[in-house]
Amino acid sequence: MTIADFLDRAELGFADSPGVIDEPDQPAPPVTASTYGRLGERVRAWQAGLDALGTREGDRVAVVSHNSARLLELLFAVPMSGRVCVPVNFRLKAEEIEYVVRQSGASVVLVDPEVREVTAGIETDHRFVLGEQTETELMRFDVEPRPWSNPDEDATATINYTSGTTARPKGVQLTHRNIWVNGLTLGLHTRAWERDVYLHTLPMFHCNGWGMPFVMAGLGVKQVVLRKVDGAEILRRVDEHGVTLMCGAPAVWSMVLDAAAGWEGEIPGRDRVRIVCAGAPPPSRLIQRVEEELGWEFIQIYGLTETSPLLTVNRARPQDADLPGEQRARRLSRAGLPALGVRLRVAESGEVLARSNVVFDGYWDKPEETANALDDGWFHTGDGGDVDDADGHLTISDRKKDVIITGGENVSSIEVEDTIFSHPSVAEVAVIGVPDDRWGETIKALIVRAEGATVSEAEIITYCKERMAGYKAPTSVEFRDMIPRTATGKIQKFKLREPYWAGRDRGVN
Amino acid sequence: MTIADFLDRAELGFADSPGVIDEPDQPAPPVTASTYGRLGERVRAWQAGLDALGTREGDRVAVVSHNSARLLELLFAVPMSGRVCVPVNFRLKAEEIEYVVRQSGASVVLVDPEVREVTAGIETDHRFVLGEQTETELMRFDVEPRPWSNPDEDATATINYTSGTTARPKGVQLTHRNIWVNGLTLGLHTRAWERDVYLHTLPMFHCNGWGMPFVMAGLGVKQVVLRKVDGAEILRRVDEHGVTLMCGAPAVWSMVLDAAAGWEGEIPGRDRVRIVCAGAPPPSRLIQRVEEELGWEFIQIYGLTETSPLLTVNRARPQDADLPGEQRARRLSRAGLPALGVRLRVAESGEVLARSNVVFDGYWDKPEETANALDDGWFHTGDGGDVDDADGHLTISDRKKDVIITGGENVSSIEVEDTIFSHPSVAEVAVIGVPDDRWGETIKALIVRAEGATVSEAEIITYCKERMAGYKAPTSVEFRDMIPRTATGKIQKFKLREPYWAGRDRGVN
Repeated sequence: MTIADFLDRAELGFADSPGVIDEPDQPAPPVTASTYGRLGERVRAWQAGLDALGTREGDRVAVVSHNSARLLELLFAVPMSGRVCVPVNFRLKAEEIEYVVRQSGASVVLVDPEVREVTAGIETDHRFVLGEQTETELMRFDVEPRPWSNPDEDATATINYTSGTTARPKGVQLTHRNIWVNGLTLGLHTRAWERDVYLHTLPMFHCNGWGMPFVMAGLGVKQVVLRKVDGAEILRRVDEHGVTLMCGAPAVWSMVLDAAAGWEGEIPGRDRVRIVCAGAPPPSRLIQRVEEELGWEFIQIYGLTETSPLLTVNRARPQDADLPGEQRARRLSRAGLPALGVRLRVAESGEVLARSNVVFDGYWDKPEETANALDDGWFHTGDGGDVDDADGHLTISDRKKDVIITGGENVSSIEVEDTIFSHPSVAEVAVIGVPDDRWGETIKALIVRAEGATVSEAEIITYCKERMAGYKAPTSVEFRDMIPRTATGKIQKFKLREPYWAGRDRGVN
Repeated sequence: MTIADFLDRAELGFADSPGVIDEPDQPAPPVTASTYGRLGERVRAWQAGLDALGTREGDRVAVVSHNSARLLELLFAVPMSGRVCVPVNFRLKAEEIEYVVRQSGASVVLVDPEVREVTAGIETDHRFVLGEQTETELMRFDVEPRPWSNPDEDATATINYTSGTTARPKGVQLTHRNIWVNGLTLGLHTRAWERDVYLHTLPMFHCNGWGMPFVMAGLGVKQVVLRKVDGAEILRRVDEHGVTLMCGAPAVWSMVLDAAAGWEGEIPGRDRVRIVCAGAPPPSRLIQRVEEELGWEFIQIYGLTETSPLLTVNRARPQDADLPGEQRARRLSRAGLPALGVRLRVAESGEVLARSNVVFDGYWDKPEETANALDDGWFHTGDGGDVDDADGHLTISDRKKDVIITGGENVSSIEVEDTIFSHPSVAEVAVIGVPDDRWGETIKALIVRAEGATVSEAEIITYCKERMAGYKAPTSVEFRDMIPRTATGKIQKFKLREPYWAGRDRGVN
């Protein structure tokens, strides 16, 4: 069970089929050859190059890059050559990237031209800019390829740094076996097959694009690289390439919905595309709009970097087909049923614990954090949730750190957000707890209004009180032009809370 | 990675959904409760019963049964309770069953009422007839269930005896991990999902029904038990239950085609059913007829009991959709592309070798045979084959033992059969080598004519000579009323050859 299984099958069965279609609009010269046969050749050239550099088995190779064919190639080449790939978020600041490179001990750093400057000061043995430099100075097309390294299935294949919504990022060690099992179950539960066309709407640095690059290759699926997430561009690519499958956070699908509103003609991919949504709990209105306005099937999954990531999957059941759209969407807004081989339980504290072949090996060089996270063999997700006795579906009630405690009551900020988001004048919303002398914390909603909408603070509060217990309604609303998110679409609540809590005892995490 | 993963997910997510629909027409009282919740309860009652008998972890429990809900339950209950299940071919003779029971060392034997007499003389600690006796004397519904045993993933889960087309049957030890990976890859490559309805057209004793009982449960798929293979009955069940997925040898689909010819009204399941075919190489005309006359998708897989069984899969590619039916069928008549994680190579001798997580652990109590079969880490299939350089698809040119050597030329009996079968007057055909003083061996065709057809020996020989090299054409033809097959649809060529070779040096295997 190693990553080689995926590429070897692609080369054997799909050598002449379209493989990876690189992004045309990027600062490096796009990779032009695109069959799976060619992918194999290029991966071998990377391996030979890393060999020639003198890097050894187990060495870490960091890649700081937007989505690109080269990043995808390296997700194969580095682990298949016996090394460890460290994909790094390209939006991080210089000192954050430096931290990841230093903490992982990477001896080679490969960077996209766009982050050339920001990574210029990094101290490492080797640094290359992806594109002309790696083609001429690193990759070796001229040597007789050696066989792939044959690492143990429990060897670390990649180290993926957590996105750091809370503390310093930690390096999540995923093994070949983690990635293999995640790929198989993700493929099974999304019914992937060789007639799919996959568009990389998800950053590949994020948990190796949820493992999709591997399983898509193993099934011989054409993969279209998308460098920048843009709603209209996604619609154009779906049309151009006959895309059938995409992954992304709710924010991605919001952008597509916005673009669809101004799209002329029929929405491409209607009744053909299925999207896989995770990274943050999607509001049920978003789900309904995706199904109704785009005609795309909405599949929710839930997981974390530490779980490769697939833990649960929620796909409409046959008996849901005739439900009214809203009810259907509400069912789909749950995290879902554990994937095959995943065990979940909810601790007394309400925290969701997981046990599975996809649970990571440990945090790189952090034995204490590892022991805490993997207490008694169960991985502690840090998220609060409930399992429905009737059908075993998990609902994430809150990222643990996002529970608001007001007057002794626990309020799920997600529940409040979901209610507010159902208001037609609301485009985006984040709900946070802010200090309150009487209640300890009180609830504040930060809202981006829909284009042209004029809804007021009082209207929002009344709207909430009509729909949920009074203590769950926000006591104040602020309207904003935008709500900042991480590259993977997560709202960084600690940043939103920061100004309100400045100088207080209670941390903002 | 244990069998419990499949049933646990079924119970968690599909407790109230249809699970296993037992065969109504059987000598034992059919199991009436059919949800996956009820399946879990019954499996626990089997476990408690086996505990109460005093059988221990690792003990073998043999089951000699036609397809039935009880047999399916035992495929879960025996391994999940830490024991080893030995499903036995119910068509074997008394002394053959006795051999399997004795060789496996089974301390418990469970038998279908129909084989009550034939198994009466078996010496074992415990023998029960499935049905009333097991419900009242063995299963324990009244005790507090204990958790499933937690065997290592490399522990033996089942021992499946090879069907004995050649020598004495050998016990193939399949581990939990073998079965787990086979289930996942089979589900992935057949695109199984919870909206499927599965009909058990394949005997479950045969390699645990290719692992389908497990993966269908894990996906919450309704499973309909079929006790006896009958073409018209299969069509009726497809209609009644909305079946979408079935497995079986080519002979099964021939029977369905025959029944379809006399079927009134539209063929049920058109454009909905997909069938998975293995056990013997299907003639391409059979494939074409399935696709054209039934409108069912034809998926070929290839494998052996020793490989759990999935090694390769062949499903029409998108670009094949517009090919003429005959060409399409010819492509589909190949064994296919290795499943994810399977490595194949063809030895110099022409034998196909396989390496994979689905390769068995060994033959029970036969270290020498195990060492021979698993020489240098590769499993020796005993089948001859070729891998197409263009697309990596394997073609089985012949079961090794079925090659005919005539005048120094190797002739694939399958190739000759395929040619003869394409003649419209031929319903069934088996090609064998018979002794010949001049050529060593010469080729004989045994043919069952299609209903009402009158084709002659000379016509068949001419037909072959027009289509293939002269030395490949049969030199004689015999017309028969039927050709005997094993329960799994395999032609037992050694039996067909026997009379011709009686008293000769060369063996008939």
